[in-house]
Amino acid sequence: MQTQKQHHVVIIGGGFGGLYTAKAFKNAPAKITIIDRRNFHLFQPLLYQVATGGLSPGDIAYPIRAVFSANKNVTVLNAEVLDIDPQAKEILLRDGKIQFDTLVVATGVSHHYFGNDEWAADAPGLKTIENALDIRSRILRAFEAAERESDPEIRRAWMNFVVVGGGPTGVELAGALGELANKTLKGDFRNIDPTEVNILLLEGANRVLPPYPPELSAKAQHALERLGVTVRPDALVTDVRPDAVVVKQGERTEQIATRTVLWAAGMQASPLGQVLANRAGVKLDRAGRVMVEPDLSLAGQPNIFVIGDLAHFAHQTGQPLPGVAPVAMQQGRYVAGLIKARLTGQPTTKPFEYFDKGSLAVIGRNAAVAQIGRLKINGYLAWLAWTFIHIWYLVGFDNKLLVMLQWAWNYITWNRGARLITEQVILPAQLNKTESEPVSQKLPLAK
Amino acid sequence: MQTQKQHHVVIIGGGFGGLYTAKAFKNAPAKITIIDRRNFHLFQPLLYQVATGGLSPGDIAYPIRAVFSANKNVTVLNAEVLDIDPQAKEILLRDGKIQFDTLVVATGVSHHYFGNDEWAADAPGLKTIENALDIRSRILRAFEAAERESDPEIRRAWMNFVVVGGGPTGVELAGALGELANKTLKGDFRNIDPTEVNILLLEGANRVLPPYPPELSAKAQHALERLGVTVRPDALVTDVRPDAVVVKQGERTEQIATRTVLWAAGMQASPLGQVLANRAGVKLDRAGRVMVEPDLSLAGQPNIFVIGDLAHFAHQTGQPLPGVAPVAMQQGRYVAGLIKARLTGQPTTKPFEYFDKGSLAVIGRNAAVAQIGRLKINGYLAWLAWTFIHIWYLVGFDNKLLVMLQWAWNYITWNRGARLITEQVILPAQLNKTESEPVSQKLPLAK
Repeated sequence: MQTQKQHHVVIIGGGFGGLYTAKAFKNAPAKITIIDRRNFHLFQPLLYQVATGGLSPGDIAYPIRAVFSANKNVTVLNAEVLDIDPQAKEILLRDGKIQFDTLVVATGVSHHYFGNDEWAADAPGLKTIENALDIRSRILRAFEAAERESDPEIRRAWMNFVVVGGGPTGVELAGALGELANKTLKGDFRNIDPTEVNILLLEGANRVLPPYPPELSAKAQHALERLGVTVRPDALVTDVRPDAVVVKQGERTEQIATRTVLWAAGMQASPLGQVLANRAGVKLDRAGRVMVEPDLSLAGQPNIFVIGDLAHFAHQTGQPLPGVAPVAMQQGRYVAGLIKARLTGQPTTKPFEYFDKGSLAVIGRNAAVAQIGRLKINGYLAWLAWTFIHIWYLVGFDNKLLVMLQWAWNYITWNRGARLITEQVILPAQLNKTESEPVSQKLPLAK
Repeated sequence: MQTQKQHHVVIIGGGFGGLYTAKAFKNAPAKITIIDRRNFHLFQPLLYQVATGGLSPGDIAYPIRAVFSANKNVTVLNAEVLDIDPQAKEILLRDGKIQFDTLVVATGVSHHYFGNDEWAADAPGLKTIENALDIRSRILRAFEAAERESDPEIRRAWMNFVVVGGGPTGVELAGALGELANKTLKGDFRNIDPTEVNILLLEGANRVLPPYPPELSAKAQHALERLGVTVRPDALVTDVRPDAVVVKQGERTEQIATRTVLWAAGMQASPLGQVLANRAGVKLDRAGRVMVEPDLSLAGQPNIFVIGDLAHFAHQTGQPLPGVAPVAMQQGRYVAGLIKARLTGQPTTKPFEYFDKGSLAVIGRNAAVAQIGRLKINGYLAWLAWTFIHIWYLVGFDNKLLVMLQWAWNYITWNRGARLITEQVILPAQLNKTESEPVSQKLPLAK
């Protein structure tokens, strides 16, 4: 399968970082293998739209194989990585091994529950397609339950929605929820008025969107309030139960009755960070992200790179770069360029430098906040910018086109046609069977 | 909740029959309740496109509430019906009861395994969104497994696909599978050539599409063969196992190694048919469909109607009407008209009459067969007719427009962007909890 002459670059992770690294090797004299446990690239920034019925999974995900169909030097491997051996330059998969000459790790981060993983059952996070469909079903089922409920107290609880975390994901989710309740579902029910929902956005810091300038945070909060969202800064969640969430603000502790809690807080690095710490002695930050060198390689491991959300890169500003797509894309291109330069015998020592095009967060229709260089914009203009920038970066042109149309349609009609409650059924017996067979060249199960 | 003066029409089932019945009551002086255990109407004829990654669930499903948002006399009830009491004019739900004055039952049919339900685990049928996503994952995982498999015999088994049943669903599924393998996935893999798949279509009768004229069946078989599908008439499946299917043709019994069997055979009426047999003494046919009167009511139960696939209506031709959408739509409109006439004191005795606009089946791009009156067409023209008729009947205009565009795009590019392998996760703990609570006005679980 491997040709011995060619340098073999293995990329772990099919997110923005991994995808842009592999793309940059087009026609390069190297063999590239990109490994992901899923068979598709997921456009995370629009995941909240799937969770609120505005888009379908197919609109924001694209098969990784299709991306590289024409790049014959790129092999896509649908597998799960269990361990990395820097000395042997070998990766252990759930169902096999693979050798590398150069390794790029781009497996990102996930949310976490501050050591209360038992909250996950009642407060799902938003990281995967499955999360989004689960959240979508919970939201829609809550309205169905309220419509059927005779006990006013329980009905009230079904109409209380709590979003934990005031970062971009939490803000976008709460905003979309406000639109869903106040516009899309208007008139759909006979016993309840969806506009009477309470949407509560809890943020531990003293304002939403902490990384943004204070005036933009204020604008974001104002826009959320116009959509019927109540913003609670300085609020810490101390317990999550099926029927309530307990919130601590300063000295005051309060229990809020709700049946729907959505989790958009906490950040936890991919387990491969810990693997690299154990195997390569690299340092991690408190979130488990890998401290990288100015060229994104590991200290003492010039052939292993970590990019994207999983990398803690503080050489430029003293602060770690934000976990956003543009950072991952630029790091992917940089690392690919560095590796190609080495292959041609002209190694570069130029450190990675992030060019910040600005940051954007959308609150809802016509409402977004943006910081582009020194320029701070909000309202319709920022929303328009957000929409087009995001759709532009969708991988796969057909997606771009159709999502833009879907978007335009939803915009005109307030419609969210994809608000389907779908069942979650058990894994096909056949696949469980495959899973339990002895480790060999068998079908890897996406985990 | 119910106003006593108004006549209460309860419709069970949000398919074509139920939807068109309820729609026909727009602005009528009656209270309508439409009950479905799912919260969306599913456009069954395009389900095979979801199963093969051409469309997303949101493209072919539409929230029932959204359909009737403006019809204030229509109440949508997301609930599961367990029993019907014609004497008490009462319906028992999983979580409550509801009274009716007139009842329309339109809960359709499903596939069945000829008494071998254990085959379901290895040979999923195509009736729900979940079925379609399960089948989609199985098909795509089979290619991933073949790409990773070193044992040529096992690799061969992963590349053998067996479709059981040569009716429209089986033919369309096999055709789409042929396009997926021969066009869409071309170039996506490095170790296998997707065009080397074997797609086997097994039909128990002596030709595919038995209800069609023989010359169209022959044309359909020819078109399937051009897509690399092997058609086997007179083939009976005697066993399905995780790694093989056993086929009996005449005296010859053969075992075919395969890891992917798709079930498109057998027809089993909704359990509510049996309920009506027990409670109202109505006769059922061998498939469990309800024998209805010329006006689609039940013998001795003028206020209970059965329409769509669940109804066995043979008064017109001596043969039961085919289980297709146009029959259900026309029966829905007829029953609604009959009930409205009764309400205005001018009961009609005109029996239902089906106007056959013709039948169509698609084999693949540019390939379809159609019978419109005496006219038999096939090839590109039939395919075009099929496409536009189907998209035209999609409920929800945004769907129509966007699906047509998605279709056009896929047509030009052979692309199937929605070919995502998604996980099936367990039901949210919260919902299981709700389910186990005592029966009351609680959240109904879609089953």
